[in-house]
Amino acid sequence: MLKINENYKNLEESYLFSTVGRKIAEYSQNNPDKKIIRMGIGDVTRPLCKAVIDNMHKAVDEMADSATFKGYGPEQGYDFVRNSLKAYYSSFGVELEADEIFVSDGAKSDIANILDIFSVDNTVLVPDPVYPVYVDTNIMAGRKIIFADANEQNGFLPLPDEKYDADIIYICSPNNPTGAVYNKDQLKQWVDFANKKGAVILFDAAYEAFISDPELPRSIYQIEGAKTCAIEICSLSKTAGFTGTRCGYTVVPKSLVFDNTMLNKLWLRRQTTKFNGVAYIIQSGAAAIFTEEGRKQIQESIDYYKRNAKVMADAFDEMGIWYTGGKNSPYIWFKCPDDMDSWDFFDKLLEEANVAGTPGAGFGKNGSKFFRLTAFGNYENTVEAMERIKNMVL
Amino acid sequence: MLKINENYKNLEESYLFSTVGRKIAEYSQNNPDKKIIRMGIGDVTRPLCKAVIDNMHKAVDEMADSATFKGYGPEQGYDFVRNSLKAYYSSFGVELEADEIFVSDGAKSDIANILDIFSVDNTVLVPDPVYPVYVDTNIMAGRKIIFADANEQNGFLPLPDEKYDADIIYICSPNNPTGAVYNKDQLKQWVDFANKKGAVILFDAAYEAFISDPELPRSIYQIEGAKTCAIEICSLSKTAGFTGTRCGYTVVPKSLVFDNTMLNKLWLRRQTTKFNGVAYIIQSGAAAIFTEEGRKQIQESIDYYKRNAKVMADAFDEMGIWYTGGKNSPYIWFKCPDDMDSWDFFDKLLEEANVAGTPGAGFGKNGSKFFRLTAFGNYENTVEAMERIKNMVL
Repeated sequence: MLKINENYKNLEESYLFSTVGRKIAEYSQNNPDKKIIRMGIGDVTRPLCKAVIDNMHKAVDEMADSATFKGYGPEQGYDFVRNSLKAYYSSFGVELEADEIFVSDGAKSDIANILDIFSVDNTVLVPDPVYPVYVDTNIMAGRKIIFADANEQNGFLPLPDEKYDADIIYICSPNNPTGAVYNKDQLKQWVDFANKKGAVILFDAAYEAFISDPELPRSIYQIEGAKTCAIEICSLSKTAGFTGTRCGYTVVPKSLVFDNTMLNKLWLRRQTTKFNGVAYIIQSGAAAIFTEEGRKQIQESIDYYKRNAKVMADAFDEMGIWYTGGKNSPYIWFKCPDDMDSWDFFDKLLEEANVAGTPGAGFGKNGSKFFRLTAFGNYENTVEAMERIKNMVL
Repeated sequence: MLKINENYKNLEESYLFSTVGRKIAEYSQNNPDKKIIRMGIGDVTRPLCKAVIDNMHKAVDEMADSATFKGYGPEQGYDFVRNSLKAYYSSFGVELEADEIFVSDGAKSDIANILDIFSVDNTVLVPDPVYPVYVDTNIMAGRKIIFADANEQNGFLPLPDEKYDADIIYICSPNNPTGAVYNKDQLKQWVDFANKKGAVILFDAAYEAFISDPELPRSIYQIEGAKTCAIEICSLSKTAGFTGTRCGYTVVPKSLVFDNTMLNKLWLRRQTTKFNGVAYIIQSGAAAIFTEEGRKQIQESIDYYKRNAKVMADAFDEMGIWYTGGKNSPYIWFKCPDDMDSWDFFDKLLEEANVAGTPGAGFGKNGSKFFRLTAFGNYENTVEAMERIKNMVL
């Protein structure tokens, strides 16, 4: 008799975005004349850049001709992408070998799938608030999960503590949902902690492209000692607008050895067995991002979103509301005025300012009095939304 | 201290295709004047059809314009693909709901990932010989594996037997590597067996498009009772030359209920948590396959490969060599002449006929005296290869 994976019964249904969606739809239906500005979902809005588009058209044409047609590619990604990524890392001082870099269909897949190479019998440390995928994937596997408190006192950047007795440590910087960014000293503390404990850090760098302060690390490998404790997972979703195009990458240094086993070899075995690589057309588009032309073009979109973030940060400064993010990040995470609960503030913001955001409670208990807005909308709407919020609050 | 997944230590390194590759390279280097015809790897060679190419160009252009740009899509696939697949199934008498169909980046991913929703504490039945992914993914999870003997006596189509005390049953038809195809009566025996035992069948239909005999089932859902015991996994890799384009689909009927739990709901939860959908551009290409024009165009390539298969089958008939496949399948699986071991025959075939194939031993112990050739090459080479083999054997 087939037995299902009982761990799935321990998952909580996530009603966050469906509830948000329903509330917006209801308000909209009852108030058809109101123009709602949506700053809730972390999805990009600007089109793919020309270099990517050109490369993809070219790749599509190659697939139309038997002389240039591509069948099965390497599961780990084509060398032309791995070498582009190697050069990209090198541009900010991180030296990797191409076969330490694995191309995938996105960070979400890798964050979930990397767990396959670890025993169920490990304890996992995740921050609270947190990107829900870190928690749910470990519940599905039946791992013990403990939480690191992120809060106003530590600027939503928790630091190591002996009470965190974990084997797998999740760090996301710039953070989703809080926009907070670890500096090098802080990350060094985590790296030292992990090396001392024999723990692995899963470093989610999905928002690294939003870092413009040269003092802040874009990669955990900018920290000494990281290559013996950290796997880095990154995505082109926010870097180059690939949320609907699906490409990311994971770095597993060969110096990561646990239990006399190279994690690089385990991950290679996982990927060659359970994955068949990313479409040639998509990888061709991805490679264009790392050309001189491509980098210039994607920077325009990143700068556009960062200009939105600045408008938002300036407005919250003006209102005197405490927040994290807004710089080096596409998110702003602020404290709800008047000690309001985040769902109550959601309703108020929707009804009084016609702006939709995401209640912090959806990311964990420490988010219950905080609120997330994203900079991925268009500039004019962002400016208008901030005016409306200021009118409401001030 | 991080503990790795110890099950990975139980995996056998697969040297099949690397050894094949090395042997060909060595022979080629020592005999630069010889023209080797490769009939080993199950990869397609013909380009994508025009309807797919046109749709993909159009989709690339949509991604270049903010008015038509697509960000995150539904993890389960766009409705336009799911509805196309629903209509496709309906064309051979299988009625499904669109939300029973999940679009993915390929059958290999789904075959691996579907196991996530089942307990480790299930016994798995796989045929021998077998597509190695069925075995390796279960070793990685630590499940008990038992084998169903496929052999000359049963035409490489094993039937249910009370001794097969399994909860998860793999069936691939048309089969890789043997090319053998179950008829409706035989599949009905498996469906009845699974329903009686409360087991689930994982039906790999990756080669269904090669079936032209209307009496043979293209889908397990053509068999009464299958919707309460079977998940079907299919791919566009062989149907439409998508090996390097990556798109497949999995059908999980809502009537599949085990342990009071709908598997459809579990799989939806797995996919929404651990996967972010297939690129819009790729899904646009996939949808073109199911238009009238697209179906006509892909049929041309399937017919081309099937003509190769017929050339091969005719040659083996002429040689009086026992085989399976060659009809309704792109593979031919034959008994090595003179009771030879499959690796010895590999060497002989390479050296005397300059034809490369795949030794059956690579697919399991029951393949040790059998050999696989594929019909995915070009016609002229296929004809020449068969002439050479006939000259060698006769």
